[in-house]
Amino acid sequence: MDKENRTLDPRDWEKMRNLGHQMVDDLIDYWKGIQEKPIWKPIPEEVKKSLDEPIPSHHMDPQEVYNEFKENIFPYNKGNVHPRFFAWIQGTGTPLGTFADLMASGMNPNVTIGEHAPMYVDKQVISWCKEMMGFPPEASGILVSGGSMANITALTVARNSIKGENIRKSGMSHLDKKLILYCSTETHSCIQKAAEIIGLGSENIREIEVNEFYEMRSDLLEKQIFSDLENGFRPFCIVGTSGTVNTGAIDPLDEILRISRMYDLWFHVDGAYGALAKLDPIYENRLKAIEKADSLAFDLHKWFYVPYEVGCTLIRDSEKHRAAFSQTPNYLIQEKRGLAGGPDSLNHYGFELSRGFKALKVWMSLKENGLEAYKGMIAQNNRQAEYLGKLVESQEGLELMAPVSMSITCYRMNPGNLPEQKLKDLNREILLRIQEEGIAAPSSTLLKGKFTLRVANVNQRTRFEDMEILVRETIRIGKEVLSDLDFS
Amino acid sequence: MDKENRTLDPRDWEKMRNLGHQMVDDLIDYWKGIQEKPIWKPIPEEVKKSLDEPIPSHHMDPQEVYNEFKENIFPYNKGNVHPRFFAWIQGTGTPLGTFADLMASGMNPNVTIGEHAPMYVDKQVISWCKEMMGFPPEASGILVSGGSMANITALTVARNSIKGENIRKSGMSHLDKKLILYCSTETHSCIQKAAEIIGLGSENIREIEVNEFYEMRSDLLEKQIFSDLENGFRPFCIVGTSGTVNTGAIDPLDEILRISRMYDLWFHVDGAYGALAKLDPIYENRLKAIEKADSLAFDLHKWFYVPYEVGCTLIRDSEKHRAAFSQTPNYLIQEKRGLAGGPDSLNHYGFELSRGFKALKVWMSLKENGLEAYKGMIAQNNRQAEYLGKLVESQEGLELMAPVSMSITCYRMNPGNLPEQKLKDLNREILLRIQEEGIAAPSSTLLKGKFTLRVANVNQRTRFEDMEILVRETIRIGKEVLSDLDFS
Repeated sequence: MDKENRTLDPRDWEKMRNLGHQMVDDLIDYWKGIQEKPIWKPIPEEVKKSLDEPIPSHHMDPQEVYNEFKENIFPYNKGNVHPRFFAWIQGTGTPLGTFADLMASGMNPNVTIGEHAPMYVDKQVISWCKEMMGFPPEASGILVSGGSMANITALTVARNSIKGENIRKSGMSHLDKKLILYCSTETHSCIQKAAEIIGLGSENIREIEVNEFYEMRSDLLEKQIFSDLENGFRPFCIVGTSGTVNTGAIDPLDEILRISRMYDLWFHVDGAYGALAKLDPIYENRLKAIEKADSLAFDLHKWFYVPYEVGCTLIRDSEKHRAAFSQTPNYLIQEKRGLAGGPDSLNHYGFELSRGFKALKVWMSLKENGLEAYKGMIAQNNRQAEYLGKLVESQEGLELMAPVSMSITCYRMNPGNLPEQKLKDLNREILLRIQEEGIAAPSSTLLKGKFTLRVANVNQRTRFEDMEILVRETIRIGKEVLSDLDFS
Repeated sequence: MDKENRTLDPRDWEKMRNLGHQMVDDLIDYWKGIQEKPIWKPIPEEVKKSLDEPIPSHHMDPQEVYNEFKENIFPYNKGNVHPRFFAWIQGTGTPLGTFADLMASGMNPNVTIGEHAPMYVDKQVISWCKEMMGFPPEASGILVSGGSMANITALTVARNSIKGENIRKSGMSHLDKKLILYCSTETHSCIQKAAEIIGLGSENIREIEVNEFYEMRSDLLEKQIFSDLENGFRPFCIVGTSGTVNTGAIDPLDEILRISRMYDLWFHVDGAYGALAKLDPIYENRLKAIEKADSLAFDLHKWFYVPYEVGCTLIRDSEKHRAAFSQTPNYLIQEKRGLAGGPDSLNHYGFELSRGFKALKVWMSLKENGLEAYKGMIAQNNRQAEYLGKLVESQEGLELMAPVSMSITCYRMNPGNLPEQKLKDLNREILLRIQEEGIAAPSSTLLKGKFTLRVANVNQRTRFEDMEILVRETIRIGKEVLSDLDFS
């Protein structure tokens, strides 16, 4: 037998150490100077070509691999580390959050089972999440990759907890009544995706109309439940949103809570973006009902400013949570001692058996900043959104497209003499050019069919003056577009 | 309005830089000296206490946060970076893989949508995965957190692709026939979990008996399908396993492929652990049928030695893949230019909208090592498992518990004069002590009801002599246990 020992470890440890140092230096320089850099730039065709080559066969020196990365990948980043990134809802991250990811990856534990410190860090972070959200200590929770997974995890528990049924065992097709899920027309698309995946079907979602503030109309919700009951459906869950993705609207959570109790329905809050607004005293009261929800989904890589990926599901009734997922295959028998001891396996609480050490970046970040800093930071994003709203309102030719709620501001340029289609063309062109010129990155959405620029601010680097720059540049580019294009 | 600008960026960038350098140094020293360190040690009570404190309120210097981490977390790692870690199936990671995670976290893109280099790296890695697995270039795929997510993603596509039904829209409860999924009694528990989550129900899984090599019996599979059809069920999918978690067994994939074609069923391969054995020439032929599968799940953080988390789902028919998940909410409208341009959004191909840059560690690792190195490395793990098997067979008092397949070796101590319960007590105690003494970390499983030590080797640091150490120490500890405990 050939007993030569191969390994993928470095041929030269000191060169690898040096490479790690270079990376740290390059990142520090990148972050530190980020506001002077363009937020985005186009990717040259030859770079795209280099990222379309077949699988490499042979060894390449790690330094050369890194050089290639520095040439072809690093310069063409998405830009959500930049102070004027406001597209979709994507957080900034922090340096210590990233360094925590370094250590997490280097330790490389699978944080599902076993007696090792990462399991306890994960537990502690879940406890802190419960504390932040006003969930009781006996509630349970799990860290997941983000909002979509957090929501589907909660909805699976909701579905598996339906009284008198054993859906884990019997599945959905034996049910004689269709299960109905309620949310609003502004609810995030991942709720529909979750409903499709867990076998409810999108036609069994009732999207309740919203009022002029884009909040679910609870009167219509109650009517719909009543009518579904009359028609032989089986309502089982209401999803209320804390911070809709389009406008930051907050559904009437107190009312939804009341209705869910009255009809014995599961009350889930999708707070992927906006549950953390609870830390801003101005929103605290309106979000109080979160504390009474049966389940809550929220993201930490959005408004808690930690790097991708980490979101969280909290479940009020930990027994229902465990009953929804628990299983113990033979090869995962838990011992009382040794490595195979430790806390209750986390595969009893979610979809995954492979779980990295994503808890560490939350742990280090909370230690570094403390809860008070998050309160101030989140409140600042809300004040910046309001400031942007005021700037928009003060400018002739700009139009606020929705009430500012949480940290989302929707606006557009409207010179007053153009039909809707032209307004759409104008604002799309503004959006593209403001990105292409590397100035700022809002994104867009449709509100009541109208194309609007959308500024979602979960950015720990944004300064108030960035809002002034955004408004100034919108107007400048808008004027250029108006004179460039044929708007007659 | 208060326009003071808060940020979570470091108060002192140079101190943060220095901290990053310390972390790199500590990791290099940790990895480099890992084989001299104990594989595991118990966590002192005061450490557990420190990981049970309430949420921090105020700022702590990052250096102090790191010091606390170094004292309370780093020393009590799980140990799968160690050359004698063989528990469950957990990979080692590599230094450059970890440094790739550092850069991925520092760039912090959400790799779902947009025109930026990480989207192209993700595409390239999927192409490479297809190449490695012999999937055609027109197939599609998505990187996920690991095997559980890879399998449920594939099974969702399978379910949503059932002819004549629109399960996304109508859900499962309108189906008049129950959908039936086939796998073996040795199939990984995540298949059951997936079936429960997507609404099939565990009672609609048919676990087909295995032969003496723990491989699915295709004669019984065909009988069962026939009987289910007769009884008004609707078979829709067969899961074949390439490398079972207990013993590394390979289901008769060619036979399953034939049967799936004959009955028009979806053929999914769970290769979470063992699809990559395809790179070992000795297994290549037996795994050839993977290339014809409708879908394949496999992990890169296991036998591709990259750090957690990254797994992959491949789907032969990319249109079915997209049709299973695609949705375009208003706020994700794709443009032809600017940041909101770019490749097809990846949320059309899976559960998630939040996706980190996990592709980078695969990209850098493949560039660094080249495919040839992986072929050698994977083959070495298989040869090491076989070597361990031979050592076990050559030792009086040790017993091989299953044929060695791929890189899993199951064995136990059996002095020949003890009843089953005592053998279990003996081997459990050996398992716990060998971990507690920090020597090695096998885990355990039950095979035909018998407790066995299980050595799963996806470790790029293991040397052949580690197998000799394992055998020697099993015997030494076994003898101690026999003399310590009352085995009369």
